[in-house]
Amino acid sequence: MISFKSELYFHDETSPSVFYPLGVTTLTSLLIYDKNIEHLIPADFLEAFPFKYAVDGGEKLKELSQFPQHIENILKIWHTSVSRENCIVALGGGSVGDFSGFVASIFKRGVRLIHCPSTWLSAIDSAHGGKTALNVSSYKNQIGTFYPAEKIFLFKDLLMKQPMARAHEGFGELVKMALIDGFFSQLQVNLPAANILWNHLEKAIAGKYKIVMDDPYETKGLRKLLNLGHTFGHALESQFKMPHGEAVLQGLFFALEWSRERGDMKPDVAANIFQTLERLGLKSLLRSSDYKAFQAEIAYEFVLKDKKINAGEQVDFIFVKQDGDVFVQKVSVSDVIKEALRQGWCHE
Amino acid sequence: MISFKSELYFHDETSPSVFYPLGVTTLTSLLIYDKNIEHLIPADFLEAFPFKYAVDGGEKLKELSQFPQHIENILKIWHTSVSRENCIVALGGGSVGDFSGFVASIFKRGVRLIHCPSTWLSAIDSAHGGKTALNVSSYKNQIGTFYPAEKIFLFKDLLMKQPMARAHEGFGELVKMALIDGFFSQLQVNLPAANILWNHLEKAIAGKYKIVMDDPYETKGLRKLLNLGHTFGHALESQFKMPHGEAVLQGLFFALEWSRERGDMKPDVAANIFQTLERLGLKSLLRSSDYKAFQAEIAYEFVLKDKKINAGEQVDFIFVKQDGDVFVQKVSVSDVIKEALRQGWCHE
Repeated sequence: MISFKSELYFHDETSPSVFYPLGVTTLTSLLIYDKNIEHLIPADFLEAFPFKYAVDGGEKLKELSQFPQHIENILKIWHTSVSRENCIVALGGGSVGDFSGFVASIFKRGVRLIHCPSTWLSAIDSAHGGKTALNVSSYKNQIGTFYPAEKIFLFKDLLMKQPMARAHEGFGELVKMALIDGFFSQLQVNLPAANILWNHLEKAIAGKYKIVMDDPYETKGLRKLLNLGHTFGHALESQFKMPHGEAVLQGLFFALEWSRERGDMKPDVAANIFQTLERLGLKSLLRSSDYKAFQAEIAYEFVLKDKKINAGEQVDFIFVKQDGDVFVQKVSVSDVIKEALRQGWCHE
Repeated sequence: MISFKSELYFHDETSPSVFYPLGVTTLTSLLIYDKNIEHLIPADFLEAFPFKYAVDGGEKLKELSQFPQHIENILKIWHTSVSRENCIVALGGGSVGDFSGFVASIFKRGVRLIHCPSTWLSAIDSAHGGKTALNVSSYKNQIGTFYPAEKIFLFKDLLMKQPMARAHEGFGELVKMALIDGFFSQLQVNLPAANILWNHLEKAIAGKYKIVMDDPYETKGLRKLLNLGHTFGHALESQFKMPHGEAVLQGLFFALEWSRERGDMKPDVAANIFQTLERLGLKSLLRSSDYKAFQAEIAYEFVLKDKKINAGEQVDFIFVKQDGDVFVQKVSVSDVIKEALRQGWCHE
C-alpha cells in the first residue's frame, strides 16, 4: 500500500505550476511553511494556496506539548470538506518536514503529503525515507510515524539561496551518503559548496532510497547504516547545541578517525579521505583552537539518553572501511567514550 | 506489511497465561487498562504486567489536548530500553482501544499492539479493523491512524460480567453486522442477551473482516457499509448524549423504517425484521412515551458536523433490502431530516 520511494521532481524554480500537471490541486491543499523563509518564496507560489499555515521552523515546532494547539489551528484554517484525498504540502527544513509529515499521517487518519525541502539537510536526507517525528521535552523523535511523502520537489533556486553556513551543514549528510554509497571519491572538490551539493543531490537521495527500500521499517538493521556519524554527533549536538548538520559532520570525523585507529580503514585510504574532506573545506573541530573538550561522563550520559539505553548496554556503531564500504558493529558505550578521550573530544 | 486481519483468540477466562505460548512477554509490555473495571480483572493478570497505565475510560480519554500529558506519563512508566518489538496491551472498551491503538501507532513510530476488548461494543466492532482515533474538542475522531492490532483476545468471563445495559448497547453493532453479513435471521432470540452476543461474536467479527480486508483504508467505499445505522444514530447520540451502542441501534430503526418507506425493503421482509428485533427485546425509542422529538434544524446541523460537510452537500446513506443485502446511496441531508420529521424523531 505505502511506497517508501517518493516521486522526485527537480526544478530550477519554485513555482506553483509544478503541481498542476501532477493532479495536485493547490486550491484544496494546505501549505505548511516556515515563516522565516517567507521572503525566499515567490509570491505566486504562496498565492496559489488559499489554505496555508505559517510555522516557526526549529526543534520547538516538534514539541509534543504544543501539538494539540497546532492541530486546533489547522482545523480552523483548513476546515470544510477536507478528505483524505486532500494534500498537505510542506515547505521548509527538517523540523517543518518532520512536523508536517506527522500531521499528514494522523489528520483524518492520513492525508496526501508532498515535501518541498528548503534546506540542504532536508533535501539530501530528512525529506526522504518516510520518518516523521515529534519530541517529548528533551527526548527527541520519541513520537512519530512512517509516512513517506507521495512526491518531493527539489527547487534549485530555493536551495541555492541558503546562507553559506547552511550549505556547510548540508555537507555532513552528503559526505555520509557518499561514503555509504561509494561516490565520495567523485565529489567535485573544486566547485562552490552549493554547486557540489546540487550536483550530487540526486545521487545522495538515490543512495538513501536504496537502503530505505531494503529496510523500510528499520527492522533488519540495514537502515542503521544511515546513522554513520550520528552516535557521537548527537552527543556533540547536545553538548554544544550545534546545528544537526555540523554535529553529523563532526561525528563523521570521529567515526572515520576511530575506523582508522582500529585498522578497519587502511592508512592510505584514511589519508585520502581526510585530504578530500580538507579540500571540501570541512574541518574537524579538534583542529580549532576554540574547541573545548567536555567531560567524558557527560558524553557517556548523552549517548545513553540518545539511544535510550541503560549503562552497560551496547550501541550499534557504524565504521568505515573505504569509500562505499561501511559496516555496523556493536560496541559498549564505554568504548565510545574511551575513543572520545583518546581523540581529545572529551576530558576525564 | 500491515495485516488488517488480526489474529483472534477466544478464551473462557482472562488469564496472563494466554500470552506466553504466543511469544508475548508481559514483563516488557505496557498494559493500558480502564481503572473503572479493575475489579473485574483477575489479580494475576494485572500482576503479570510490571508496566501498567490505568486510564479513565470514556470519550475524555480521547481528547487531543490531554494527549501530551498521557505520553509523558507513559514515558515515565515505560521508560528504559523500550523498542518497537515491545507490546502495548489494551484492556478496556472502545475509548481505551482507540486511545491505546493511537499511542501504539506513534510511540517510537509504532510498537506492537494487542487488544483485549472488555465491552461488547468493542469486542464486536471497534477493536477490529485498525482504526485508532482521538477527538479534537467536539470533533470526534479527527486525528488517528490505521493500525490494526496484531492479536485480539476475546475473554468470555470479562464480557459476561458486563451489566445488562452494556449488553443491550452491544446489540446495535451485532444487529448491524448481522444485517450486512446475512445472519440476522439466525440470531437466537430465545437466549439471554449476553449469550446471544457471545454465540454470534465470531460470526459478527468475521463479517467485519470480510469488508475491512476488501477496503482496508476506506478508499473504495465498501467500508462505508459499516456505517449502517450511524448517520442518524450520531445525530441522536449528539442530541441525547446516549451511549454509542444505543444510538446505533436507534439509527438502525431509522434506516430500516426509511428503507421500508422507500420500498427498498418489501413489507413482509420489513415485518419479519421488526418482529425479530422485538423478540430480541430491542425497541425503537419512538415507541416510548418518554421520547421527546427534537428540532429538525438541530438534527440537520448535527449531520453536517458529523460528516464535516457544508449545507447542500450529500451524504452516503446505507439502506437495507433484506437480511444480507444492504447498499449505499447518496442522499441530501435535507432528505434525511425530512424522513426524521416523517418518522417523528424531529419536529419543525
